[in-house]
Amino acid sequence: MSTVSAARDVAAPIGVFDSGVGGLTVLRALTQGLPDERFVYLGDTARLPYGTKSPHSIRRYALQAAGLLRDRGVKCLVVACNTASAVALDVLQEEFAPVPVLGVLEPGAAAACRATRSGRIAVIATESTVRGGAYEAAIRRRLPGAIVTSQACPMFVALAEEGWTDGPVAEAVAHRYLDELFGREPQPDSLVLGCTHFPVLAPAIRNVVGPQATIVDSAETTATALAGILDGAGLRAAGGQAGSVRLLATDGAERFARVGGIFLGRPLVAADVEIVDLPGTGGNS
Amino acid sequence: MSTVSAARDVAAPIGVFDSGVGGLTVLRALTQGLPDERFVYLGDTARLPYGTKSPHSIRRYALQAAGLLRDRGVKCLVVACNTASAVALDVLQEEFAPVPVLGVLEPGAAAACRATRSGRIAVIATESTVRGGAYEAAIRRRLPGAIVTSQACPMFVALAEEGWTDGPVAEAVAHRYLDELFGREPQPDSLVLGCTHFPVLAPAIRNVVGPQATIVDSAETTATALAGILDGAGLRAAGGQAGSVRLLATDGAERFARVGGIFLGRPLVAADVEIVDLPGTGGNS
Repeated sequence: MSTVSAARDVAAPIGVFDSGVGGLTVLRALTQGLPDERFVYLGDTARLPYGTKSPHSIRRYALQAAGLLRDRGVKCLVVACNTASAVALDVLQEEFAPVPVLGVLEPGAAAACRATRSGRIAVIATESTVRGGAYEAAIRRRLPGAIVTSQACPMFVALAEEGWTDGPVAEAVAHRYLDELFGREPQPDSLVLGCTHFPVLAPAIRNVVGPQATIVDSAETTATALAGILDGAGLRAAGGQAGSVRLLATDGAERFARVGGIFLGRPLVAADVEIVDLPGTGGNS
Repeated sequence: MSTVSAARDVAAPIGVFDSGVGGLTVLRALTQGLPDERFVYLGDTARLPYGTKSPHSIRRYALQAAGLLRDRGVKCLVVACNTASAVALDVLQEEFAPVPVLGVLEPGAAAACRATRSGRIAVIATESTVRGGAYEAAIRRRLPGAIVTSQACPMFVALAEEGWTDGPVAEAVAHRYLDELFGREPQPDSLVLGCTHFPVLAPAIRNVVGPQATIVDSAETTATALAGILDGAGLRAAGGQAGSVRLLATDGAERFARVGGIFLGRPLVAADVEIVDLPGTGGNS
């Protein structure tokens, strides 16, 4: 346990972090669901991606990223990265208590369990998230009879970062990953987008999985969960406060702005991004 | 300048480093060209990829990786990463003198200048290498009238790491990147593979660029350049020494072995890979 320096103040910002720009899909949903809140978003771009790294490294990076946000006085923390939510949520909650720490994985698993009728749920995520089996565990905790199939889709991350969200390459990659999951009867009736990069590929994914499957994007359910946590802790911003977003990254403001715009859904420029240092990153624009 | 602890001994190993596993295509060529040498290869997998990071971060990471190899007593250093060769070679040569430091970029540029007849040379590489313009500069230094066109191909890195080196996805990606470069007359007559990941995609690339263009892979010319440097410095291993390869990584022995086998051209297991710490990586298997 470290000294608690985070603010217990309704006007304090909400800290959100991710390995890079993918978590901006979550930030976007949070700002839409909680328009009166101030957000500070940190992308650990000097060390992205987390999804191919070991659990030990991911926990270390997540603790450092969350520590920087804690030092900025955030009233609560959102882990906008499935990989870090899967392997680091427990250590973050322990280290930063009593500051509430919310991941995207549990809200995503809960939404999948609400969406499914057949109990057959497919999960697509990074290598690390799939290997750890955290989605399967979180789903089965709620729905013990669920039949969960998982597929690591690392090329979806590269596609999303390149901005190739539709067209022949996106379609070919989506078929290669998803035909196996959805080509056999009985098909899953729900598909969890278990990586924050994937929502921008939802149309290409929809083309492969067909109209009947429910596509679960944990960003929106995370916004609902966050509202509940803030209300429960008496930390919800007053209605009159002007919402705001501040963007931090550990490397490459120009690239963060260019690629991040795809995920946030609005254009960014390098001047919107403040470069910060974490141990071992030596941040620089 | 730091204290020189590297061995000036013909029997000492040659240090080779890369951001991850891509440099194993270079290691493979080096072991084939210099079968009597001992090699120590370091992949900085905890912080891969370098190709999307800032020059400042890349220089910092490269100095740390090279420092670890220096401390292992290497007689010379090969930067088996185009991105690091492009932005960090000068600081590495300054920091580690008199240990010879060889990058892959200059040998690749030299080979392209030898291969071209028309002077029209295309370069494909990572974002960082293309933005820095180091290949253009190195080619024009040798061939002032050369017309160099460059294209960042980050999806090729993801394809190679996924092992999707042929088939419809590789073809669609190759067309998307290369049709623009090779679809107009007059076409380039040489294509430099300016990223160590790309040689495993050479057949798919060949399908798009056609049979007439020369594909330049800097791995082989780097082996020739290294032999010259060792001979010039009196550091070439004696003919009777048994060559060997030792593999180090900063994260994820299992993934290094699984993906690295694609690049090295022979199967690896996790036990072949020693996990080491660099500042800020906190290496773990």
